[in-house]
Amino acid sequence: MSDEKSGEKYRIEHDSMGEVRVPEHAKWRAQTQRAVENFPVSGQRLERAHIEALARIKAAAATVNASLGVVDADVAEAITDAAAQVAEGRWDEHFPVDVFQTGSGTSSNMNMNEVLATLASERLGRDVHPNDHVNASQSSNDVFPSSIHIAATAAVTADLIPALDHLAAALERKAAQFADVVKAGRTHLMDATPVTLGQEFGGYAAQVRYGVERLRAALPRLAELPLGGTAVGTGINTPPGFSAAVIAELARATGLPLTEARNHFEAQGARDGLVETSGQLRTLAVSLTKIANDLRWMSSGPRTGLAEIALPDLQPGSSIMPGKVNPVIPEAVLMVAAQVTGNDATVAWAGAAGNFELNVMLPVIAKNLLESVRLLAAASRLLADRTVDGITANVERAREYAESSPSVVTPLNRYIGYEEAAKVAKKSLAERKTIREVVLESGYVERGLLTLEQLDEALDVLRMTHP
Amino acid sequence: MSDEKSGEKYRIEHDSMGEVRVPEHAKWRAQTQRAVENFPVSGQRLERAHIEALARIKAAAATVNASLGVVDADVAEAITDAAAQVAEGRWDEHFPVDVFQTGSGTSSNMNMNEVLATLASERLGRDVHPNDHVNASQSSNDVFPSSIHIAATAAVTADLIPALDHLAAALERKAAQFADVVKAGRTHLMDATPVTLGQEFGGYAAQVRYGVERLRAALPRLAELPLGGTAVGTGINTPPGFSAAVIAELARATGLPLTEARNHFEAQGARDGLVETSGQLRTLAVSLTKIANDLRWMSSGPRTGLAEIALPDLQPGSSIMPGKVNPVIPEAVLMVAAQVTGNDATVAWAGAAGNFELNVMLPVIAKNLLESVRLLAAASRLLADRTVDGITANVERAREYAESSPSVVTPLNRYIGYEEAAKVAKKSLAERKTIREVVLESGYVERGLLTLEQLDEALDVLRMTHP
Amino acid sequence: MSDEKSGEKYRIEHDSMGEVRVPEHAKWRAQTQRAVENFPVSGQRLERAHIEALARIKAAAATVNASLGVVDADVAEAITDAAAQVAEGRWDEHFPVDVFQTGSGTSSNMNMNEVLATLASERLGRDVHPNDHVNASQSSNDVFPSSIHIAATAAVTADLIPALDHLAAALERKAAQFADVVKAGRTHLMDATPVTLGQEFGGYAAQVRYGVERLRAALPRLAELPLGGTAVGTGINTPPGFSAAVIAELARATGLPLTEARNHFEAQGARDGLVETSGQLRTLAVSLTKIANDLRWMSSGPRTGLAEIALPDLQPGSSIMPGKVNPVIPEAVLMVAAQVTGNDATVAWAGAAGNFELNVMLPVIAKNLLESVRLLAAASRLLADRTVDGITANVERAREYAESSPSVVTPLNRYIGYEEAAKVAKKSLAERKTIREVVLESGYVERGLLTLEQLDEALDVLRMTHP
Amino acid sequence: MSDEKSGEKYRIEHDSMGEVRVPEHAKWRAQTQRAVENFPVSGQRLERAHIEALARIKAAAATVNASLGVVDADVAEAITDAAAQVAEGRWDEHFPVDVFQTGSGTSSNMNMNEVLATLASERLGRDVHPNDHVNASQSSNDVFPSSIHIAATAAVTADLIPALDHLAAALERKAAQFADVVKAGRTHLMDATPVTLGQEFGGYAAQVRYGVERLRAALPRLAELPLGGTAVGTGINTPPGFSAAVIAELARATGLPLTEARNHFEAQGARDGLVETSGQLRTLAVSLTKIANDLRWMSSGPRTGLAEIALPDLQPGSSIMPGKVNPVIPEAVLMVAAQVTGNDATVAWAGAAGNFELNVMLPVIAKNLLESVRLLAAASRLLADRTVDGITANVERAREYAESSPSVVTPLNRYIGYEEAAKVAKKSLAERKTIREVVLESGYVERGLLTLEQLDEALDVLRMTHP
Repeated sequence: MSDEKSGEKYRIEHDSMGEVRVPEHAKWRAQTQRAVENFPVSGQRLERAHIEALARIKAAAATVNASLGVVDADVAEAITDAAAQVAEGRWDEHFPVDVFQTGSGTSSNMNMNEVLATLASERLGRDVHPNDHVNASQSSNDVFPSSIHIAATAAVTADLIPALDHLAAALERKAAQFADVVKAGRTHLMDATPVTLGQEFGGYAAQVRYGVERLRAALPRLAELPLGGTAVGTGINTPPGFSAAVIAELARATGLPLTEARNHFEAQGARDGLVETSGQLRTLAVSLTKIANDLRWMSSGPRTGLAEIALPDLQPGSSIMPGKVNPVIPEAVLMVAAQVTGNDATVAWAGAAGNFELNVMLPVIAKNLLESVRLLAAASRLLADRTVDGITANVERAREYAESSPSVVTPLNRYIGYEEAAKVAKKSLAERKTIREVVLESGYVERGLLTLEQLDEALDVLRMTHP
Repeated sequence: MSDEKSGEKYRIEHDSMGEVRVPEHAKWRAQTQRAVENFPVSGQRLERAHIEALARIKAAAATVNASLGVVDADVAEAITDAAAQVAEGRWDEHFPVDVFQTGSGTSSNMNMNEVLATLASERLGRDVHPNDHVNASQSSNDVFPSSIHIAATAAVTADLIPALDHLAAALERKAAQFADVVKAGRTHLMDATPVTLGQEFGGYAAQVRYGVERLRAALPRLAELPLGGTAVGTGINTPPGFSAAVIAELARATGLPLTEARNHFEAQGARDGLVETSGQLRTLAVSLTKIANDLRWMSSGPRTGLAEIALPDLQPGSSIMPGKVNPVIPEAVLMVAAQVTGNDATVAWAGAAGNFELNVMLPVIAKNLLESVRLLAAASRLLADRTVDGITANVERAREYAESSPSVVTPLNRYIGYEEAAKVAKKSLAERKTIREVVLESGYVERGLLTLEQLDEALDVLRMTHP
Repeated sequence: MSDEKSGEKYRIEHDSMGEVRVPEHAKWRAQTQRAVENFPVSGQRLERAHIEALARIKAAAATVNASLGVVDADVAEAITDAAAQVAEGRWDEHFPVDVFQTGSGTSSNMNMNEVLATLASERLGRDVHPNDHVNASQSSNDVFPSSIHIAATAAVTADLIPALDHLAAALERKAAQFADVVKAGRTHLMDATPVTLGQEFGGYAAQVRYGVERLRAALPRLAELPLGGTAVGTGINTPPGFSAAVIAELARATGLPLTEARNHFEAQGARDGLVETSGQLRTLAVSLTKIANDLRWMSSGPRTGLAEIALPDLQPGSSIMPGKVNPVIPEAVLMVAAQVTGNDATVAWAGAAGNFELNVMLPVIAKNLLESVRLLAAASRLLADRTVDGITANVERAREYAESSPSVVTPLNRYIGYEEAAKVAKKSLAERKTIREVVLESGYVERGLLTLEQLDEALDVLRMTHP
Repeated sequence: MSDEKSGEKYRIEHDSMGEVRVPEHAKWRAQTQRAVENFPVSGQRLERAHIEALARIKAAAATVNASLGVVDADVAEAITDAAAQVAEGRWDEHFPVDVFQTGSGTSSNMNMNEVLATLASERLGRDVHPNDHVNASQSSNDVFPSSIHIAATAAVTADLIPALDHLAAALERKAAQFADVVKAGRTHLMDATPVTLGQEFGGYAAQVRYGVERLRAALPRLAELPLGGTAVGTGINTPPGFSAAVIAELARATGLPLTEARNHFEAQGARDGLVETSGQLRTLAVSLTKIANDLRWMSSGPRTGLAEIALPDLQPGSSIMPGKVNPVIPEAVLMVAAQVTGNDATVAWAGAAGNFELNVMLPVIAKNLLESVRLLAAASRLLADRTVDGITANVERAREYAESSPSVVTPLNRYIGYEEAAKVAKKSLAERKTIREVVLESGYVERGLLTLEQLDEALDVLRMTHP
């Protein structure tokens, strides 16, 4: 049939509420179509990783349903095969439902059920039912949140942690390369005692490595699945053993450390494991902010800034100021961090909005969490490859800074005391003399407070970078 | 030329840093291509409204540049014509730069400069330069933030405020319709004195109307443009009068209340007007959260909830529980509110990150702010059309609630005092009697504290809904 | 009586739930005592300004109640007198209830009712009842939120706005003083075209002035009071005319622009006006963050930083590094801004948590909002008096920066085009020559692209600070 | 001496910047006094737990300094003894410095150094120097952040985790008690298949137990101390072995699992471990929000709400509505959760603000983090003791709900399919019949789709609460 006005071809599908016109080419059916019409909100669809996880659950459920006699073997095989294709991304355009939909993700779960039913029906030549076959032993209420946990576990372990390892390794290479580049430390943005550039990069690498620890610390609760709880956590309409079997099958198929919820009512009513993971991502955003800002400031200039290091030139920096080159990758990283921080606020807000046996903010939690993982992984790799790897040190300028800082007076505390040392530092600044000059002319050596050798040793800036 | 490996056709473009391979079909040039390669981060592009605003600035600048003799008239006309096409959306696929790019938006400004230069060159048959012609008298640093302010002003006034007016009107219609539907008030979720359902909907409408006031209150600062400040706010490389003229031209062309920055250094270094607007959107999200939650609770049930009102049935609510229908639009609205709240956190975080003459978090501010406006507008219309308009009241149940609330004892305070009234309320609950019954059997009438007429009047629930 | 174990003296009070032991000296009674025992949470009490506002409502209500014949004139006068004492702070220790209490603030409202009843009873020599007299025509549900709006309106208009005006004036004095101090602009932290230090301070002043505009823009909704709505917005148990009369009395007594809620159901169920105001405070925090960071960076050094300005020395900066002085006031301001940002998140979170006729997160909203106002006012005055007023410019260094920035090539775009100018800038950096030297040796003058006079004029850095 | 105007007695102290008047009675000296005058911001002081941790560091440092020959044994003993008194809280009024001070906490570190120096001097009868003796081998930059980590580790392990265990145990007791109380599940706030009240309480208990897991997961990084890094992480001015020895001494003295920073530059420049811990607290706040809201809704009524459970009556709920009792403890818990969420936003904002070798937002991070721990611990205990322990179930009403929910049709899917079951559910609602009645009159039994026994078994609501 075709619409009189638009001329578009459609077919009639029905669900428990009646008939619906569905575009002729669509693999989806009535409930998906209702959702398309009900939610013209953002134009944003579920994340790719999310569709994949949802499909993998359907495949595992079909396999287990067949083994437990709930679904015929040939139907299960057809569903499994269709799900594999969807997981690979072959039918992405058939998932048109908006992120801002029903809060349980039922529309997306039904979208998946319908597409798989259609594909399986086409293959088998007989009707496969979205609810009775594809969704057998399942509910949106356990499937949809499980799909978020699976997608996030996969993204964290297979995408983000490797990206962070990659960034940490890049930072550690620079830490080694810059091990002897002495420079001024800065606290309160003010001149402090010396450090090496390598020590600073080692600190950044540690921040990133700790980020990996943080993610791993949350995994036990992220990888826990409500699957098997069905509608309200009780597992109504599941055959005995379904829950354990389907999660074992998923763990096998994905290679992820997935486990069954220790408490299916926590797993059904709360999404705390996602909120926790989002919090860890937010901490990572905080870490990257610190690193990106330090890189920007150290490379500031070239003439009116600190200019201790140089970042690789990537693109012209200004449409009006010729020759200007800017720290564009650190800026992109900072914006990613800002986005992740906001996404985390959304996740927490949504995570607190659950009532009784369901949190109905699931799609927005999924979108924000999975986007954050994806952005952080991309930003980490980019920062490693296009900025950190190419950083060079301005060794001379760095040493000049180190030596000019009035804080190099600090090691003299043990000889002349804090208050005398403060006088030396102030005189050095006021009279534009070096600390050494002021010490000598102040008579501390004559008075036997320290020897010339002790003075030289005390003022050796590289020596100051170790206890 | 075509790449040996991929076989893709490309041409060579150059910029101030050297040569770059650009896809043969692309209207963009070298700097855009560098940005495409430098920022493979999110896959998200600038919002449509943002591209349009950027194009409109280029058109206005070309017009004014021509009138001030900075650019030849035919070149200006070719740019203006190209910009009109871009504003309409005809060349959207030629804006491939990621949102997470250089923080000044220079890459997107250059993308616009390059596409317009190419289109204008094609029309004129001679080369139009992206910087010297299209970007003449401009800098990314004034153009890009101005484009955010313009896009946001347009979206707020032409999209969001009308959507809110639409929602408020729908709520007001219901307020009128339900003016006499008396029901129990609830405070602390506990039984309170009666209100009418119409009073409640009137309150929701007022919340939405106040949201419009909030947006209008921020407009004077949102509609202020840094345009004309060029690189650092000083207006370097602008001809005299450029700033005022280009903003007047923009105001004329767009019909928006755009004004020139009262202080070009505030306008260049800070993005406070965007942070403020985002805050107002966040307050709107808070308002919609309250409204959506009340609607959900009032329609909860049908058997185990409050069931005072019914929302229209839109789609099957569960993949496992047959016949279930859920408040899906309020849920979508709640998720939009959660997203807006997180977007606002991103905007504030980014807004605080400026240094000196520029905030380099502009694209992420733009994305989050414009997305929030768009989502709120869509959600408001949806809530009006698919939920509020179809709400029906369960008049009987509402009245039963009103009459059964022990708080109807409240008007008796004036006759028997707060403490005696408390005893009546407690006895009523404990003995499952009505307030009237307890009053009568407690002898207050006999003791002359009140008459039977006063008692009846005092216990009239509809009467209690007015002072 | 005295407790057997502790020996503490107490008296017996009762309320509608029974008897309670109250410390003998306490002016409060049974309900306050219950609340003290029920809420041993934070140890934090209501803000002083909040207690004052609550007392002022009681005074106004007593006055109007007397005029409307609801309360005897002598009782009303005794209440009014007691309330005046409480407003002044004479009985602060008799308000022991924790902020984290019942979400309606009923415990604090009853605390006020009880203390005033006791004080009034002592004066009159006969019993004044907390509910029937002091709370007459009122409910916690309209009184407590009204007290927040009044306290916030007072704090914003009498404390914060004057503090901001004071800070803006200090910044404007510096803008005038530094009007001719030319320095390098910085965008992306990188060298840009020149600005004057005065222009920068003028920008900061504008940010602060706009902050005042933002607060004034929110005032119409902040100064709107739910008072008169009593329990659920219907005004149950108020005599005719009470609402308008009591708010008029309050406006008169406080001198604040207080108005009655245009819609008493919005005013009862939502606290959006407080969320909005908090958002404006948050924007102010963002503004102060930008200003404080710029001041810190400009004064960084003295040897290894930018050192364009010097802040007044206030205290030794380090317990280990002698002679170090740090930008401690800007740091305190930054911490205040961080606190305000978090407080705002709490306010929004709480503001979204209302249901039906009441938001039961009132005390936490009050605490965070009023604390934010107080902190911002103190921080603004401190920044003005202890930092801005004493700032000195390092004029020579600032000019050196301005002249050394390769971006001074920008005015040459009009003579030699953007791409040639980029070559000049890069050569200048690579060969450590001035822009002037490179232009001369590159033959642009010989080729007639510009004259020597034009070159000199183009490279005049002070000239570059205006269009 | 005494001030001419005020008559207050003072003495003259000096530091490296000159002389300062200090109140005669004060144990503090010049730098504390400067800070008191420099920071009249909030009136809030460091948390008690923070002062204690700071004192413990000083004691440990004195002990190790003596053993390494840096400080004389008698001086060290005097310091240690004074620090023990301060740790116990005997000198709290001598720590007057505002939270909003220098961002390194130097003023509070010096306050501690000065008070201990004074106390030690008084005991020894000879001068002990705040910097040269008390602060020996230390810097504010390692001591102050270490004190936050120690205080937080102590508060989490000794206060919050036990409180959570206490709450979880209370919830688990109720889970056991309510194991057979069948009730309607609710998803989307709509009628769903049955659960037991015990299952719900078991889920809440699991949320709390997981909260403990989350805290333990963060401890390894929270308990890591920068101590020994001194000014910039290099350990300048520490004797060999100081760092390991002082942390071992602290671990011994406090019984906490404290460890030395694995990377002293991460530990100095970043405060990510505090941000992470705050994120875990925020997740806990999210958990408590869910629990408190469920309790409020289940106990809503008594007449116009769900009324499935009753909370203990604690205090009169309304100043106007007699006899009203509200869920005041859950409300207080919700407000604590809102506060913790905002505090967390402050911590993240501040945590991202570090530069180079120091984060100068330390005091505000400390205040917010430690307050959050304290509030959550108090709220958890309160919720257990004053609400959970006294909850009673309305068993009859709960079963009525369970049986009336149309979702009890769900087990029939396996006999008649999802679509037929949907028809049954809708008919049941429309005609106000039970599911059983509709099934019988629809002829499914006659058609042999299921037997009467299967029907009865399928509709057994308690049976539905297990797979």
